[in-house]
Amino acid sequence: MPGTGTNRIVTANPPGGPEVLRIETRPVPQAGPGEILIRAAACGVNRPDQIERMGFYPAPPGAPEGLGLEVSGHVEALGEGVTGFAPGEPVCALVAGGGYSDHVVAPAGSVLPVPTGLDLVEAAGLPETVFTVWANVFEIGALLPGETILIHGGSSGIGTTAIQMAKAAGARVFTTAGTDEKCALCRQLGADRAINYRTEDFEAIVTDAGGADVVLDMVGGSYVQKNVNLARPGGRLVSIAFLQGSRVELDMMRVMLKRLTLTGSTLRARPVAEKARLAAALRKTVWPWIKAGQLRPVIDARFALADVRSAHERLDSGAHSGKILLLP
Amino acid sequence: MPGTGTNRIVTANPPGGPEVLRIETRPVPQAGPGEILIRAAACGVNRPDQIERMGFYPAPPGAPEGLGLEVSGHVEALGEGVTGFAPGEPVCALVAGGGYSDHVVAPAGSVLPVPTGLDLVEAAGLPETVFTVWANVFEIGALLPGETILIHGGSSGIGTTAIQMAKAAGARVFTTAGTDEKCALCRQLGADRAINYRTEDFEAIVTDAGGADVVLDMVGGSYVQKNVNLARPGGRLVSIAFLQGSRVELDMMRVMLKRLTLTGSTLRARPVAEKARLAAALRKTVWPWIKAGQLRPVIDARFALADVRSAHERLDSGAHSGKILLLP
Repeated sequence: MPGTGTNRIVTANPPGGPEVLRIETRPVPQAGPGEILIRAAACGVNRPDQIERMGFYPAPPGAPEGLGLEVSGHVEALGEGVTGFAPGEPVCALVAGGGYSDHVVAPAGSVLPVPTGLDLVEAAGLPETVFTVWANVFEIGALLPGETILIHGGSSGIGTTAIQMAKAAGARVFTTAGTDEKCALCRQLGADRAINYRTEDFEAIVTDAGGADVVLDMVGGSYVQKNVNLARPGGRLVSIAFLQGSRVELDMMRVMLKRLTLTGSTLRARPVAEKARLAAALRKTVWPWIKAGQLRPVIDARFALADVRSAHERLDSGAHSGKILLLP
Repeated sequence: MPGTGTNRIVTANPPGGPEVLRIETRPVPQAGPGEILIRAAACGVNRPDQIERMGFYPAPPGAPEGLGLEVSGHVEALGEGVTGFAPGEPVCALVAGGGYSDHVVAPAGSVLPVPTGLDLVEAAGLPETVFTVWANVFEIGALLPGETILIHGGSSGIGTTAIQMAKAAGARVFTTAGTDEKCALCRQLGADRAINYRTEDFEAIVTDAGGADVVLDMVGGSYVQKNVNLARPGGRLVSIAFLQGSRVELDMMRVMLKRLTLTGSTLRARPVAEKARLAAALRKTVWPWIKAGQLRPVIDARFALADVRSAHERLDSGAHSGKILLLP
């Protein structure tokens, strides 16, 4: 019952490796005006959680306490003024924090119904990646049918989602991954060409194939100049993370001569109204892809919430493909 | 008479300093289908001409022979299918080459009537800067009324035009220039704040004033990171030249966190149809500003065409403010 009982959250104070993660207990939160209280069935583990755990990605002001950016579960209570959802309804939601939890409060605009035909637990792996890919590939990157996209980190949660969404939208998809097994997964998800970046030269391969109109990059570092080199005239290069570091050396001459756009964004700090706008776009365009079987979250592993350290160890190892989930 | 007689052009073979510039003689060109032959009254000297002279900016395929990207003059002959212009009409035009000349052929879509109230010779200083500023500040940069723009090189041909156009569009204008006299000129043209970059810190001044939504940069080098630092969230940074070099070190993290756009473009290589589209937009929005006295080309000096080396020496010196013109 909301407002009574206890609720587990996961904190990282002081920051560090997976060993700093601690389960703490708080009162069950209440849904304020415009909010929905969700009884969590599963919580997604994301790259930003890892960076927050290490102390490099402070939560935005006003975010709920604790790690975790996405959940699925049943609606437990509706805050004042919330319409369009009913208690007991299966939903998934993007949250600004506190997602690794038994009960989670989300702004109603960040909550979406679990699409027909999708398992409730698997749905926890959906929000962070579909919001991120929609905002960066389709809105900022303006990917069009028939265009070519290069998706780095193709076997990651974001990558597996981006491959499927880009194919559903009618694009030609190149992707990079670090093992032949991960490349096979990417092809299975629809990638026209999966490049093993340890044994192949993605810059040469994409360039020889005519170049890319859009690049979705979470690597940064030396990749940025390579992305600039392989981009087609008018290309859009979108950075969403910097696993190789964000300090880059770059020849801007090619940016000018090819009229490229270098840009990037983060999801978490966007205002609630902006997330609601994205959610409406997802419901309209992406939910039908899920219903039609063109998009499903790729789940790597499931861990009990109490075993959150193991979940983060797997994320840190880089051995995963797709999403890691926590089960409260 | 077109097709007979001789026509002077200016070449730079082999490339080098102003001393390599040579007047050569060619037959008077003829207006092909869709083209207009112009008897030149004046030709503008631009920064790309200098770079082409030095051998670093080869002319695009199909460009007329010789230096020079803009002219004013009278219509001498209309090619097949050209409507909307009459022989003898005063016009100005953007050309892909061969502008330093007695007679110039331009695609009709790149030709504009000389705006009422503007001197025919001064009009030669208009096309390159207004096309460039429109394309980069208003189309690519999407500057809105009430927004803040930082214009580097405020006393240059591009800079003096950009200041006036941004003010006419209702923006707040910050600009940089290298002497107090040049700063005074920028303020006279409407700049809200002109920063002497030799004695003042433009990054601190613009940041303290709330940051810039758009930056128009022809400096590059160390300016790029400073532009990123002073940009407001959602800011657009547009590079149109790299006087300090195009190889930059950049922290892309700020690009992502502030959702900035780094981009750039050149005018010369754009297709004829694209220039015609820009010309139509200029006629609709910018020509009324000229008629209303809100925009005039700032002319630094006039040289005889035969004295083209002196004109380039002045450009190389950096002592000029506004446009340098050649008179055939």
